[in-house]
Amino acid sequence: MTSEEFRRFGYQAIDWVADYLAHADRYPVLPRVKPGELTDALPSCGPEKGEPMETILADFERLIVPAMTHWNHPGFMAYFANSSPPEAILAEVLATALNGNGMVWKTSPAVTELEQLTLRWLRQWSGLPDDWFGMIHDTASTSSMHAMAAARDAADPQSRTRGAQPGLVVYSSEQSHFANEKGAIAVGIGRDNVRKVPADGEFRMRPDALEELIERDLAAGLKPCCVTATVGTTSTTSVDPVPAIADICETHGIWLHVDAAYAGSAAIVPEFRWAFEGCERADSFVTNPHKWLLTPMDCSIFYTRRPEILRRAFSLAQNAEFLEVGNLTREVNLMEYGVPLGRRFRALKLWFVLRSYGHEGLANMIREHVRLARDFAARIEADPRFELTAPAPFSVVCFRRKGTDDENRALLEKVNAAGDVFLSGTVLNGHFTLHLAVGNQATTAAHIERAWKLITSE
Amino acid sequence: MTSEEFRRFGYQAIDWVADYLAHADRYPVLPRVKPGELTDALPSCGPEKGEPMETILADFERLIVPAMTHWNHPGFMAYFANSSPPEAILAEVLATALNGNGMVWKTSPAVTELEQLTLRWLRQWSGLPDDWFGMIHDTASTSSMHAMAAARDAADPQSRTRGAQPGLVVYSSEQSHFANEKGAIAVGIGRDNVRKVPADGEFRMRPDALEELIERDLAAGLKPCCVTATVGTTSTTSVDPVPAIADICETHGIWLHVDAAYAGSAAIVPEFRWAFEGCERADSFVTNPHKWLLTPMDCSIFYTRRPEILRRAFSLAQNAEFLEVGNLTREVNLMEYGVPLGRRFRALKLWFVLRSYGHEGLANMIREHVRLARDFAARIEADPRFELTAPAPFSVVCFRRKGTDDENRALLEKVNAAGDVFLSGTVLNGHFTLHLAVGNQATTAAHIERAWKLITSE
Repeated sequence: MTSEEFRRFGYQAIDWVADYLAHADRYPVLPRVKPGELTDALPSCGPEKGEPMETILADFERLIVPAMTHWNHPGFMAYFANSSPPEAILAEVLATALNGNGMVWKTSPAVTELEQLTLRWLRQWSGLPDDWFGMIHDTASTSSMHAMAAARDAADPQSRTRGAQPGLVVYSSEQSHFANEKGAIAVGIGRDNVRKVPADGEFRMRPDALEELIERDLAAGLKPCCVTATVGTTSTTSVDPVPAIADICETHGIWLHVDAAYAGSAAIVPEFRWAFEGCERADSFVTNPHKWLLTPMDCSIFYTRRPEILRRAFSLAQNAEFLEVGNLTREVNLMEYGVPLGRRFRALKLWFVLRSYGHEGLANMIREHVRLARDFAARIEADPRFELTAPAPFSVVCFRRKGTDDENRALLEKVNAAGDVFLSGTVLNGHFTLHLAVGNQATTAAHIERAWKLITSE
Repeated sequence: MTSEEFRRFGYQAIDWVADYLAHADRYPVLPRVKPGELTDALPSCGPEKGEPMETILADFERLIVPAMTHWNHPGFMAYFANSSPPEAILAEVLATALNGNGMVWKTSPAVTELEQLTLRWLRQWSGLPDDWFGMIHDTASTSSMHAMAAARDAADPQSRTRGAQPGLVVYSSEQSHFANEKGAIAVGIGRDNVRKVPADGEFRMRPDALEELIERDLAAGLKPCCVTATVGTTSTTSVDPVPAIADICETHGIWLHVDAAYAGSAAIVPEFRWAFEGCERADSFVTNPHKWLLTPMDCSIFYTRRPEILRRAFSLAQNAEFLEVGNLTREVNLMEYGVPLGRRFRALKLWFVLRSYGHEGLANMIREHVRLARDFAARIEADPRFELTAPAPFSVVCFRRKGTDDENRALLEKVNAAGDVFLSGTVLNGHFTLHLAVGNQATTAAHIERAWKLITSE
């Protein structure tokens, strides 16, 4: 492809994106395809000869776009809604062309330093300790797996050499994300050694129950090594009582990991700072700007106040002769702190976002999403046919129609079939419940109104 | 940012990229910055108010670009050189705007299905078994960690529940990548249980030595669970004798993982098929299109013929009520096969690349890179001042000036200081050696000529 062709197709792609961002709501949020339908529509063998870009772009529009679930659609209110804003798209264009790889400082100083810098800015805006160390992973599951590996090695430094020793136990609430179990499986602790701590009536971990489980495990000769507290659980966005949990962790010398994958973005808003009380005492903390901070997939931030534990576990710098790993104070080599060696230039999009919106712009977006969610929750509360099924401290509302689970499943299906909004469901206290999450940049009161109409139409 | 502004800045970004791709060689490959210099040049706090895009783009050019190691530069010949071609950049523009997340099939059918489809095309082009299962991870280190978790669980299905049991042992050659040790540390096997199998004079794992180590471990009551064979090692691109290693693995019921992160791309070229003999017997296989197949960071393919082992280890579908995980035959849910839940639409760039270049175009690029490397190796061989330090089966040449290590380190430093080529170094048989890797799309005979001039100038 010549420079001129690239310019032509590049402008065309930009035009397509501009149009998409302005009118994503022309597409049904959920695609109307069956499993395998896209696969069947595409050749089962790759082409022997290259094909013209016109054909590829036409197939993209004709086949790929209709098979997308449109996460960047203002009617997307399932799971945790997210956004890919224009400013971040510009950054990704540039980052892809540069194709930097921050394996170590030297292999791309800007990749490493901008990652450190943006994570510092965000720490400051969030009131988190300034001396924490941060790095970006693909997903919160990967970040939490690293937290668990660190907790394992903090409890037993010989894990690195001898392997995971039997008897390690980790804890998280029954409302926590299953990433905690995956992490425990991955690092060799095992699923049977994950304790699910009972939650209270508002879906928050019960510190008394945590203490009891720890005491029981200690009495049985086991080694509690990690507690994951969640600030903003996946189902209800409930907030575990971190200060009380931190007390327990400190008493017993247990690694405290905080999963704030979704709600962590709200830490930049002063009126939500209450939810992060005690987090400054955490050993590690995960927050995903790709959820609620206008950053496209993927960008999960892993902070830790004990980077030396990760480095002790994962650094193999002396084995990396081909990399000539430096060891100057300011020459951080991120590959020494985790599993991945390669490192995409993810920080550029985050830098573009933090700068274009500023602290104020991002905080105002979060405030507006919370306001929209509260308006919706107020409607639910005011309508005797419906009920809230959990408190709604952030931008997620859990609710159900008074009636059976089947009726509520049918309601969700009906709402989503219309194509202009997409809600998800979850199970709370054994009952199916609907879950509306505000989080896309383009979502407005009109989209909430539309959801309300669909939910209440007979 | 309005649509019109996005178009304007988008065109500007495309123009910048077009210019960059045409003239990346205007920049020194290695940046002339000291550790911390970029950090010091940027504000230590993020902006309270949003800043104009003009300012951000200006800072990008003024501060970020000069602090990049230019991987997309035709003179980049260090490590494994790679490329970000214009076609893939177009795909990333579109994928970022869509912001799809393939956690499960339903959360973006196109993300899941296009990943399956492109990986099938590539399997076919590579002569790998058509019934293998494939998925994309960020890096080969992550892929290999999953191989090791699968091997651990294949050897002891109770690893999932009880944790890694003591006594598991893994094997790879002394020339293998340190990702194998990281993987063993991560999954709880431990570094002391990684056996480094001696290599022969051409840096290939010695099957007799492997057999001996396994017998010794078995006699000691240990459980060999994984052998990693490398096709294209990091230092010299040597090829382990996979058929003999596969025999040993089959005899003892050990998981065979093949690390073809770099050389795997050459499997699409018939004349390099010899290097993959026996790979069809592997339990898992990793190849990184982001190394030598024109795909920008990040894209590491993990294939396995035993996906059920990974699913048994990692599936927590029943815990993921909020995802309503389907279980239709054609509804693959990739989050059940590994740690990450979120999944970026990485397959789109791969699909654009496979289609734009076709099998033939990609194979010809690999052929040309190998031809350039062989030309360079021939010059080294013909010059009595230099010597090859390893065979060069692919596009990497290891060589040194006859003399001391210090002289060779000084030579590397001098060559890299010029700014128009970037070579790396490694240690072979205890001696420092230079490493020239051809792998960037824009690298031509002129760049090799320039490297030669720099190397031979007194």
